Amino acid sequence: MSYERMGNWRKTHTCGEISLEQRNEEAILMGWVEDIRDLGGIKFFTLHDSEGMIQITAPEGKVEEEIFEKIDSISKESAVAVKGKITEAEQAPGGVELIPEEIRELNPAKTPLPLDPTGRVKADLDTRLDARLLDLRRPKPSAIFKIKHLALQTFRNYLTSQGFIEINTPKIVGTATETGAILFPISYFEKEAFLSQSPQLYKEVLTGSFEKVFEVGPIFRAEEHDTRYHLNEVLSADIEMAFATKEDVMEVLEDVIVEIFERVKTQASEELEALDHDIEVPEKPLPRLTYEEAIEKLQEKGEEIEWGEDFSIPEQRLLGEIIEEPYFIIDWPTREKPFYIKPHEDNPELSHAFDLLCREIELVSGGTRIHEKDLLKKRLKENGLSPQQFQYHLKNFEWGLPPHAGFGLGVERLLMILTGAKNIRETVLFPRDRKRLKP
Amino acid sequence: MSYERMGNWRKTHTCGEISLEQRNEEAILMGWVEDIRDLGGIKFFTLHDSEGMIQITAPEGKVEEEIFEKIDSISKESAVAVKGKITEAEQAPGGVELIPEEIRELNPAKTPLPLDPTGRVKADLDTRLDARLLDLRRPKPSAIFKIKHLALQTFRNYLTSQGFIEINTPKIVGTATETGAILFPISYFEKEAFLSQSPQLYKEVLTGSFEKVFEVGPIFRAEEHDTRYHLNEVLSADIEMAFATKEDVMEVLEDVIVEIFERVKTQASEELEALDHDIEVPEKPLPRLTYEEAIEKLQEKGEEIEWGEDFSIPEQRLLGEIIEEPYFIIDWPTREKPFYIKPHEDNPELSHAFDLLCREIELVSGGTRIHEKDLLKKRLKENGLSPQQFQYHLKNFEWGLPPHAGFGLGVERLLMILTGAKNIRETVLFPRDRKRLKP
Repeated sequence: MSYERMGNWRKTHTCGEISLEQRNEEAILMGWVEDIRDLGGIKFFTLHDSEGMIQITAPEGKVEEEIFEKIDSISKESAVAVKGKITEAEQAPGGVELIPEEIRELNPAKTPLPLDPTGRVKADLDTRLDARLLDLRRPKPSAIFKIKHLALQTFRNYLTSQGFIEINTPKIVGTATETGAILFPISYFEKEAFLSQSPQLYKEVLTGSFEKVFEVGPIFRAEEHDTRYHLNEVLSADIEMAFATKEDVMEVLEDVIVEIFERVKTQASEELEALDHDIEVPEKPLPRLTYEEAIEKLQEKGEEIEWGEDFSIPEQRLLGEIIEEPYFIIDWPTREKPFYIKPHEDNPELSHAFDLLCREIELVSGGTRIHEKDLLKKRLKENGLSPQQFQYHLKNFEWGLPPHAGFGLGVERLLMILTGAKNIRETVLFPRDRKRLKP
Repeated sequence: MSYERMGNWRKTHTCGEISLEQRNEEAILMGWVEDIRDLGGIKFFTLHDSEGMIQITAPEGKVEEEIFEKIDSISKESAVAVKGKITEAEQAPGGVELIPEEIRELNPAKTPLPLDPTGRVKADLDTRLDARLLDLRRPKPSAIFKIKHLALQTFRNYLTSQGFIEINTPKIVGTATETGAILFPISYFEKEAFLSQSPQLYKEVLTGSFEKVFEVGPIFRAEEHDTRYHLNEVLSADIEMAFATKEDVMEVLEDVIVEIFERVKTQASEELEALDHDIEVPEKPLPRLTYEEAIEKLQEKGEEIEWGEDFSIPEQRLLGEIIEEPYFIIDWPTREKPFYIKPHEDNPELSHAFDLLCREIELVSGGTRIHEKDLLKKRLKENGLSPQQFQYHLKNFEWGLPPHAGFGLGVERLLMILTGAKNIRETVLFPRDRKRLKP
């Protein structure tokens, strides 16, 4: 394998930005070789980079003989640099092409490739994930991550504009946060430790100093089951607010969700087009349904669900069809929610918890938290957890921890809604589940 | 313990924003009680929140008898809500005070507190970390995290403006990235897995589709030793760029570092003042010293260091005193750097690696990477690593992986420079090291 040097060449343009305006300019372009066509007296290939593509046209006699020959030897998806002149060309896509003066093969690709890089021959997700580099070089999969970038920036910038401060809580933790979820154990020197399943307890404590905090970071859950909605490692976008209740954080959530939808719709229109997906910006306020109303609506539709049960995916899908999306379900049974959620004072069977759903997908969980130490100890015990184990956490409640509320948003699940991805694995660069730990 | 309800009260102002302009307005303030003084006919306390503080003044006869009595029972650092009128007061800090009409004790603090919340009585770092909530309620420790927020936002926004895309690489990984560093093993179902010590290999691969990528995320290293500069879990701010060399990424790094220093100096001047710390915005280009020149400078000063050795902390401190800071050291011995760093073509003993240092602290490591598969295999073997184990990674080099370069910046170490913190543990909310895994 021989590699030509980039030397002092640097990109002067991206392939996507070249238009008739740059006609007759000299350009150095770098990217990957796509379709190569040899029409005898004229050879073409398309060069694409992360921003778009352009046609490279080599008419015999008009380009150096050496270049004319070289084009035959280039394999698809090789990384190349091309220097040449931007030329008007009616037949070319975008009305311009590049007439090459020099081509450098920076990294020739090996043939055959494990998947069709144009995406014309469909590959299943596992094959695509095994050749993720080639997969992500295509407009459709890469559009998902450009939208992810925009959604994350919007989340952070919006919360920053509202006076929230970014926090980074530990991912190596000494104790479990919630009952039920399964933790990954770590060998942490001589101690027992786990991977954090949620920033919950830390972010609650930090409302007692910073008041309004957010975090975007990985969370880890040892989910054994294989569904389209679960992975062992995902991103969670969390907020927590002092001197606030669930109603306050539901308003923040509505604002940030609408802001994300708006920005994606307007600033990622090309990506949505590549994905052949359209989104509607939801209108505030989003519908609010009590848990009891949701149960009743499902019973009316003939579903066999009783008060106290959680909703199945098909039931959530049915609710999504009945109600305008996205929508809140509030006032959940206390026993369905974690120990730190505040029960109603007049009816402790109900809690100040909420979920935000869209289609069949649960996007967000949140609620008003307990800030009274004695009540929290009681709720720990009722959940089969030992207050002794949470002693370090409970101390904070003696130091003026304010009333507070917050939520955790599943970033990849939101991406499924924003991009139309059918499987959560499409929204993660290198997804982690029980079956897949590559590389 | 009795808790008064917040009810429908919400903050109308932050304590910090009230000035003479709001004189005679009704306000609801929420925060924590500081100094309480009883001068007989008049009682005062200061109320502080995350944004500042204000004096609450209760003159006998001018406030309800009940409120006048209540002030005596409030303990320091209790979370309270106060409703009252903003009133001009020449003697009060800021020229205004609040005359209370109603006070609600939302969460009374227990006495005695484990540390002096005013910071007047000094506490050691371990005591402070054990009562981190109280510690972070003070201006000095909290200023560090406000600056951290600003530095992270600046890093991301600057790179976004330059066309970089945010990536999130797995923290649960199947293989080690580098030799030398010690990994934390995880029980990942039936498989062997580790906590990621660097996004290095993933970000390199992703230059082959997105070209310019960045990530801010946790990295994990099982450092056994206890120094002021190391923790087991820190944040790394990484970039990687296609069709680029170390010179290109050093320019990006200079730009982003100067941008961060500028923003912190101008937008966090209050925080710098609270920390009693000043920073100078470095001038571009930053000094570039070859490894060999650095060795010579140290030898001239009488240090016993030979070519091929790494610099000790005192040697780095000495270099920082000789050269204007921050400064680059380039062209490191290949054997001192990881396998993926590109050696010089004309002298393979030297590598295209660079470090950025400031004071005695190594802030950034980066370099031009190897994009040729055969050379990478050779370097793996020379480092005692098995190409077989990196097979999944090596495949990418057959698929047109472009020439690329990048760096990783230690966020907490940069914070030490920006805030004057003497110990890296001060720059992490809940630091993780062998001795400390709380809570």
